[in-house]
Amino acid sequence: MKLENPSPIEWKFSDRAEQLQSSAIREILKVTMRPEVISFAGGLPSPETFPVERMRAAFDKVLTQQGKSALQYGPTDGYAPLREFLADSLSTSDSTILPDQIMMVSGSQQGLDLLGKVLVDEGSKVLVETPSYLGALQAFSVYRPEFESVDTDDHGLVPASVAAKGAGARLMYALPNFQNPTGRTLSVERRYELVETCARMGIPLVEDNPYGDLCYNGEPLPKMLNMNPGGVIYMGSFSKVLTPGIRLGYVVGPTPLIRKLEQAKQAADLHTAQLTQMVVYEVIKDGFLSEHIPTIRTLYAKQCNAMLEAMSKHFPEGVRWTKPEGGMFIWVTLPEYMDSKQLLDEAIQQNVAFVPGGPFYANNPEKNTLRLSFVTVSPERINEGIEKLGKLVKAKI
Amino acid sequence: MKLENPSPIEWKFSDRAEQLQSSAIREILKVTMRPEVISFAGGLPSPETFPVERMRAAFDKVLTQQGKSALQYGPTDGYAPLREFLADSLSTSDSTILPDQIMMVSGSQQGLDLLGKVLVDEGSKVLVETPSYLGALQAFSVYRPEFESVDTDDHGLVPASVAAKGAGARLMYALPNFQNPTGRTLSVERRYELVETCARMGIPLVEDNPYGDLCYNGEPLPKMLNMNPGGVIYMGSFSKVLTPGIRLGYVVGPTPLIRKLEQAKQAADLHTAQLTQMVVYEVIKDGFLSEHIPTIRTLYAKQCNAMLEAMSKHFPEGVRWTKPEGGMFIWVTLPEYMDSKQLLDEAIQQNVAFVPGGPFYANNPEKNTLRLSFVTVSPERINEGIEKLGKLVKAKI
Repeated sequence: MKLENPSPIEWKFSDRAEQLQSSAIREILKVTMRPEVISFAGGLPSPETFPVERMRAAFDKVLTQQGKSALQYGPTDGYAPLREFLADSLSTSDSTILPDQIMMVSGSQQGLDLLGKVLVDEGSKVLVETPSYLGALQAFSVYRPEFESVDTDDHGLVPASVAAKGAGARLMYALPNFQNPTGRTLSVERRYELVETCARMGIPLVEDNPYGDLCYNGEPLPKMLNMNPGGVIYMGSFSKVLTPGIRLGYVVGPTPLIRKLEQAKQAADLHTAQLTQMVVYEVIKDGFLSEHIPTIRTLYAKQCNAMLEAMSKHFPEGVRWTKPEGGMFIWVTLPEYMDSKQLLDEAIQQNVAFVPGGPFYANNPEKNTLRLSFVTVSPERINEGIEKLGKLVKAKI
Repeated sequence: MKLENPSPIEWKFSDRAEQLQSSAIREILKVTMRPEVISFAGGLPSPETFPVERMRAAFDKVLTQQGKSALQYGPTDGYAPLREFLADSLSTSDSTILPDQIMMVSGSQQGLDLLGKVLVDEGSKVLVETPSYLGALQAFSVYRPEFESVDTDDHGLVPASVAAKGAGARLMYALPNFQNPTGRTLSVERRYELVETCARMGIPLVEDNPYGDLCYNGEPLPKMLNMNPGGVIYMGSFSKVLTPGIRLGYVVGPTPLIRKLEQAKQAADLHTAQLTQMVVYEVIKDGFLSEHIPTIRTLYAKQCNAMLEAMSKHFPEGVRWTKPEGGMFIWVTLPEYMDSKQLLDEAIQQNVAFVPGGPFYANNPEKNTLRLSFVTVSPERINEGIEKLGKLVKAKI
């Protein structure tokens, strides 16, 4: 019953699919899987921080006590007790977030995709930082917007640039805490100014916050969500504070938007695994994150310091880099005439890897930039890798 | 730090989002959650069939032995051992399916969304059965195709209708086994003719097969995939043979398409939970499904028979219904002048629910049709509910 000599299909992909491409980072990661490579290229959290035993016990408990409901289809907006817990955590004394304003998603990447789906038409103006998170650029690109790159300086996004460039934008996408890729953090004053500007211009402001809890000193800065719950779309994630492989995040926003996102999610994948949500609720409901997150902060701070020290020692004059106060990334700016992609080719020969900065720009890539992650490499290997990179850069001066 | 009197956002949704609406079924399900309601409306498998203890043991084993890798980010195309297992299971003596032709998805609903994303432009012709699976219509609708309804008769889809109407179509979507909503099964001869017609016309043929293993007698019919692996896109699911709440399915197709789907999935949600895939592999790798699936078949066959018997007893002349040989659904055609939505309103008053047939039609809904599911209701309650429905229908004659 097999067709004889069928004509092969000539694939006609949709216009949006024609411009899809594999992430530059994922391609580099394939090269850097070899154990001898010192990789600063990853965006993966350190598996040392995963509370494996705690997760195991929670799966065991949920499946033992509520197995059948955990394994059945669930509601599209998510598991109610978890949404209630998150609503409480996100509320402040002067801004109340309700469970109805929260939808669970299969990792916050899905939140980005759904936002693009419901807010972006072909040619819509979408505001992004310079540079911006690559995964967001990819997710929005599918819906074929015109990206407008908002100016940034050493302190991150410049709100006045939104006022200048933002008219008619469908959304402003910002990552205010320990930004991916730059590691920069937006000050409270700029947050307020950004929120105010977007509200005045009627632009929905997306606050993506995967790294906010990973501050090395003090407490996280106030969320833009709480400055204007009616105009900010907040995205949270369990990937960096618990584990990424379970694919669980959430989108918080005004209910008209959340209901529209819910319809889009229903068509996209019905709902996010109920079991996963019940397990995460079980793990965090009694305050586990407040004891667990500090251990991640300590580990990452140590490795960040090791990298910053190694850079001071081994990088020549003319190279600049950010000094993050949290998160997972350092952003390096080489002298203008250097090309970080060429540097990567040479570095890989010496078993060191990083991500060139170009793909993080929606427009006009600055080719002399690169992103380094320190979270999965030991201080000794960090020093070794940075020393090698420093020598390669020096040879180009 | 809260904005005073911000102007509320006037939401401007994308054109595609404006036409999104919540599934008619999901809305009905909210009404029918009350325990006193005898609901034939659900599309949920019976939780009695979930191998909860086996799943629990597998989560325990995977997290104990490979916890860190199970909880880390994973590859976009899925967990390799599971893809290899599936490739073996899908291969036949004269058609080999390779692991590279398989991508894991977060439930086959996601497969439908990604297919729409990469194959459908605004206005593209998409062929669907009359009636068709509502979730597929929803998933494709987002990409704004022109649906062309392919003719069907008591034996399901009529391949000659594809030849007549299909020129230039971007895809043909078919559900050949115990179709949702009609319960009909396509004969081997028609399958072959459909495969041949689509191949000749260069139309990618989507074979959605969530229920194929739930045949009450004998063995499943040959897959269209194996008749022409170069032209058929096959979609499989663990929702009906294991559990739906874990959200795990797979798409099988020619590699150029699978690579494009992989790029789309990367932008949509990075990957499907690695842990879930490892657990499902652990559960099924030694042949568990071949002992488990027969228990589901036996249960559903019993309840299907109970419903068919009750219908013979309580439904008046002039009402017709399908006699499924597997799956979860019976399709009822009332006399032409009746409206099943009106019937539903009356039925809910009497604590009986079903799904009206209208939403399953891409064009020209037949309002005198309805879908019944028997899988989550006991034979006694089935008889009680059908008796009530029968009385309501008789009162309209």
